[in-house]
Amino acid sequence: MSGFRHVVMFKWAAGTTTGQQDEVAARLTGLTGVIPEIASFSVGADAGVNQGNHDFVVVADFADQDAYVAYRDHPAHRAVVDEYIKPILAERAAIQYEL
Amino acid sequence: MSGFRHVVMFKWAAGTTTGQQDEVAARLTGLTGVIPEIASFSVGADAGVNQGNHDFVVVADFADQDAYVAYRDHPAHRAVVDEYIKPILAERAAIQYEL
Repeated sequence: MSGFRHVVMFKWAAGTTTGQQDEVAARLTGLTGVIPEIASFSVGADAGVNQGNHDFVVVADFADQDAYVAYRDHPAHRAVVDEYIKPILAERAAIQYEL
Repeated sequence: MSGFRHVVMFKWAAGTTTGQQDEVAARLTGLTGVIPEIASFSVGADAGVNQGNHDFVVVADFADQDAYVAYRDHPAHRAVVDEYIKPILAERAAIQYEL
């Protein structure tokens, strides 16, 4: 396999509801219909197996770094980040790497 | 797709060398020959596109949660964590989720 992968995890602020998290998941997944550079997109909520984990994760694959940057900077993506993620965000951890 | 995914990111301590990181990558990847519960295993170093990122990531897929726990607790995995990861670890972020 080749490509470029973006992984980001979030911890939500105290008081964040399941409904707010579900809204983030739905809004992010909806980007696959708007940003053609997304080759593969997976989101998930922590399964609760281990203590200290982050709450939510996105694993998104792209053909190359340029395709990832197009996603990162796409107005539809920025709108989800600004309107749905940032208001409930406590911590963020991210990485991008060559597959 | 169905299954159970484990994602973990590390930030290395100041002074960690590329050689040490390469050793972690090699030792972790070597687990695929030792722990049959690993269905898919991907490791990578940060591509340097964004500031503030973590340094290294593991994305590992399993058939189910029990298979992940078998990996998590396997002595060969614990040995890599104790001998190669913990000595250079500064920060860790992890999540597991249903695919």
